[in-house]
Amino acid sequence: MEPTERRRPAADVLVIGAGVIGLAIAWRCRQRGLSVTVVDPAPGSGASRTAAGMLAPVTELHYGEQSLLALNLASAARYPSFAAELQEVTGRSIGYRRSGTVVAAWDAADLAALRDLAGFAATLGQPVQTLTGRELRALVPGIAPGLPGGLLAPEDHQVDNRRLHGALLAAVAGSGAALIDAPVARIDLAGDRVNGVTLADGTALAAGTVVLAAGAHSGRIAGLPEGARPRVHPVKGQTVRLRMAVETMPPLILRGTVKGAPVYLVPRDPDGPASGDGAAPARPGVGPARGGRSGTAELVIGASSEEAGFDCTPRAGAVYELLRDAQSLLPAVSEAELVEVSTGLRPGSPDNAPLIGRTGIDGLVVATGHYRNGVLLTPITGDGVAALLADGDLPPALDAFQPERRAPQEVR
Amino acid sequence: MEPTERRRPAADVLVIGAGVIGLAIAWRCRQRGLSVTVVDPAPGSGASRTAAGMLAPVTELHYGEQSLLALNLASAARYPSFAAELQEVTGRSIGYRRSGTVVAAWDAADLAALRDLAGFAATLGQPVQTLTGRELRALVPGIAPGLPGGLLAPEDHQVDNRRLHGALLAAVAGSGAALIDAPVARIDLAGDRVNGVTLADGTALAAGTVVLAAGAHSGRIAGLPEGARPRVHPVKGQTVRLRMAVETMPPLILRGTVKGAPVYLVPRDPDGPASGDGAAPARPGVGPARGGRSGTAELVIGASSEEAGFDCTPRAGAVYELLRDAQSLLPAVSEAELVEVSTGLRPGSPDNAPLIGRTGIDGLVVATGHYRNGVLLTPITGDGVAALLADGDLPPALDAFQPERRAPQEVR
Repeated sequence: MEPTERRRPAADVLVIGAGVIGLAIAWRCRQRGLSVTVVDPAPGSGASRTAAGMLAPVTELHYGEQSLLALNLASAARYPSFAAELQEVTGRSIGYRRSGTVVAAWDAADLAALRDLAGFAATLGQPVQTLTGRELRALVPGIAPGLPGGLLAPEDHQVDNRRLHGALLAAVAGSGAALIDAPVARIDLAGDRVNGVTLADGTALAAGTVVLAAGAHSGRIAGLPEGARPRVHPVKGQTVRLRMAVETMPPLILRGTVKGAPVYLVPRDPDGPASGDGAAPARPGVGPARGGRSGTAELVIGASSEEAGFDCTPRAGAVYELLRDAQSLLPAVSEAELVEVSTGLRPGSPDNAPLIGRTGIDGLVVATGHYRNGVLLTPITGDGVAALLADGDLPPALDAFQPERRAPQEVR
Repeated sequence: MEPTERRRPAADVLVIGAGVIGLAIAWRCRQRGLSVTVVDPAPGSGASRTAAGMLAPVTELHYGEQSLLALNLASAARYPSFAAELQEVTGRSIGYRRSGTVVAAWDAADLAALRDLAGFAATLGQPVQTLTGRELRALVPGIAPGLPGGLLAPEDHQVDNRRLHGALLAAVAGSGAALIDAPVARIDLAGDRVNGVTLADGTALAAGTVVLAAGAHSGRIAGLPEGARPRVHPVKGQTVRLRMAVETMPPLILRGTVKGAPVYLVPRDPDGPASGDGAAPARPGVGPARGGRSGTAELVIGASSEEAGFDCTPRAGAVYELLRDAQSLLPAVSEAELVEVSTGLRPGSPDNAPLIGRTGIDGLVVATGHYRNGVLLTPITGDGVAALLADGDLPPALDAFQPERRAPQEVR
């Protein structure tokens, strides 16, 4: 970085973090006419890369998190137009696929628990369909024999998170925002106000607003008073990417809880442009027709959940457990090619809900704590923070997720 | 490749294959004053890389393979001076470690089978020590509880096969041999005599003798009459490399057969110069003292054995099974970092013994078919082929392994 950087004019918005959240914010802010700088030492190397890309408001539903469900549903509803707009702007598909999700029950007790969840979802207006064993095998022909049933969440879809990140990066680069691949050393305060950041090489970047969107690392960046750091903690997750014959892939997302351990299998489209993009959804629960296709496609298996600080080394035991459980649900996994093991850090928050909005420090906005739902919440977070910065107010849908909410458990 | 290559003078010896076997032959031939060219499109990318480096004449012993045992023992006996000479010539350690090997019994039936093997080995003059469960746990403190016993093969050691390959490459390069990183398109015949090879780019390389040492690929190189191709077939093997805390590593090689599936765990020395090199062996069965060390070291887990043609993709099921079985023997494997999955092709022969020596075609020597013992047999193969080419005769120890032996089963 040359000293001339020090004379870079102040940006309206400086975003720390070029994962999907930071980039969506940057892109939407540029569309509102704000000048934007994004800083990240390794864009897209974190949770945005490790994620599987499930858009799963219903099958990620937990009792007591109704307020989060509403946010998740609102963001899921934006995905068709979000995907179409990104494709129009960048010429790239993000692999948005309206396939639906099947949850397989491992045993009778698990089936009973799934039926309870289905009932809970129905009271929230989210119809899911319970499945007999026969119906389950009809939807996923390669599934392990003998499973007693399950449920179908016809509106839990997927996006290819790596394509999403690539498209957002292209959209941001094409929007006139500045992208700086460098570590932030600290957030700078002038009195009580944040007025920019200093990079690790000493370069100071001035900004009207700093948006802290550094995922699990958001609480570690120096410069803020202790109490002002976002209350996020890393939750290590591992995913495994396989390649397998298309005819052995599950035709839709397959989830299950094998002897107490949750696992999911997310089938990508075969190579080439993703089908199911844009405005013409395939039939939920069936996925695009593929009978005539040959070749291979990617299957993403996830995810471990470990409290291990900022350690990102892949753990042999987690890989073993993911392969074991995936293979228990779908025996063809055993014959698949192992392509990649990936490890990332989810930004966990005290109540598992995101922290989005202004803070007690003037000039500092945060957008982090998305935990298991970062990819899903990308559209609404980008839109919401851009509205905040351009119009002065967060949209009502985000009201409950302000970072300095006093009693986090109240938003559950 | 420039046309000037076509005017390269004929080498005395042209070796096809820069794995450990081909390189050892090349090095020893140069030491005998022969001019040498080695051709390989990707030196050290095959079985030499995937191997675990066990030097295990006793724990790889199979009933009926006594003749192979003698060869394996003879090559194992050369390792101390071979390692010392490579270190002197190149300044590199090859990680030769005289640790001994423990075989853990999974259950009472397995223990009985191990005792039979111990008796068989004793009749062949190879004393192995049977172990009680208590003795087993004393030798490998981190071993799974409840195993009934096992045996100790105090003379089954290890080398770091990747360091071995690197040192041989350096020795060959320093010896004045020519190394050409290119694929061989065919072996050239003039009448009934091999007189060189042609590379994929059309370059012809002349040679007095061609040594075919291309491992599992040795039967696939064009130019030879059908009946003259070495009878080798690929046996796919996978290994997994982990990194773990030194204090959780087994202090010596740990093998076992978990519910019928063989698995081995080969602990490398912590980073830095390997101990146990050269002339001063550590106490067998105990390994170098490490109580005071900290840090991490590599553990190699192997190996699957699959008939899958020339497919080299890592199979998820094989990785799963290796991790499962390794973890069953040594629970700390679960916490280790997964560093690498590697896949290679063993050169299997009709009788599991190598094919070394002249063929029915003048000017063609083969050195392949080493199957599970390529690293172990590297010293004796290099010495033997160099003797053949410099003196005209194979040493007696290799007599039984000539490639055109009529009834392969007779050498078992």
